[in-house]
Amino acid sequence: MTAASWDRSNCSVAGTLSVVGEKWSLLVLREAFLGVRRFADFQRILGAPKAVLTDRLATLVGSGVLTRVPYQAEGERQRHEYRLTQKGLDLYPALVALMEWGDRYLTEDGAAPLELRHRDCGAPVRLTLVCDEGHELGGAREVRPRPASPSGTEPARP
Amino acid sequence: MTAASWDRSNCSVAGTLSVVGEKWSLLVLREAFLGVRRFADFQRILGAPKAVLTDRLATLVGSGVLTRVPYQAEGERQRHEYRLTQKGLDLYPALVALMEWGDRYLTEDGAAPLELRHRDCGAPVRLTLVCDEGHELGGAREVRPRPASPSGTEPARP
Repeated sequence: MTAASWDRSNCSVAGTLSVVGEKWSLLVLREAFLGVRRFADFQRILGAPKAVLTDRLATLVGSGVLTRVPYQAEGERQRHEYRLTQKGLDLYPALVALMEWGDRYLTEDGAAPLELRHRDCGAPVRLTLVCDEGHELGGAREVRPRPASPSGTEPARP
Repeated sequence: MTAASWDRSNCSVAGTLSVVGEKWSLLVLREAFLGVRRFADFQRILGAPKAVLTDRLATLVGSGVLTRVPYQAEGERQRHEYRLTQKGLDLYPALVALMEWGDRYLTEDGAAPLELRHRDCGAPVRLTLVCDEGHELGGAREVRPRPASPSGTEPARP
């Protein structure tokens, strides 16, 4: 495939960036994956300006990545908290990919500040590229991108 | 782990975003992975303002993600092209993760505009979370994050 042969107008990288491609949005998601749900907690932990945080949370709710759920602690007025939807949970690999790269290249001695462990067996977790034939790929050079066939049409492949 | 118990100051997500967490930077990387190397081609394909593109390329070169290499076509003056370094190539999973999410949630009928195929066998490629015991994980809910032990120290945990 040549670089010019693919129509970028539907690019899913650009599309995803339009939803989460902003520093505070991704940091909000990071906190959501760590269990943070309340506005005051996001604000305290991130140190984000209130107006910015309000805006980013509204955008993430508007795009269906977070959902705003009422809750009421006894004796307190009703508040709202923010929970990841399935659409939001599915952003997890993107967060992990950014984290793994930072762990490798931006930490002083390659020491990751946060470890991810498998809930069931406790072993370290990592992202990997695999193909449907079960091969594990070493990286970008082992991948060939190509424009997908129009929907409903079977590609003419062997 | 509680959300409060982890020191965010070394967060690798935030660190990575400081390098590539900007729409144009990531789109430049997308093009680089598709084989684009020359300023004029980046500019033409992305439609980015020249000053913005110059700035983003310089940042990516400065952080070691791209390298600027001289080349000279016969009869032309010397120019430079931009190539992914290993550090840049290792951002591939982050791009793929953003793409997969966009393919799932932002395309009209879930039809991916671009397919990734294994160079060696031609089968579709996808990102997956695995643990060192060989289990494939279904998603974020099967991962437990925890602060890493200081280097050289075993964590005091069961």
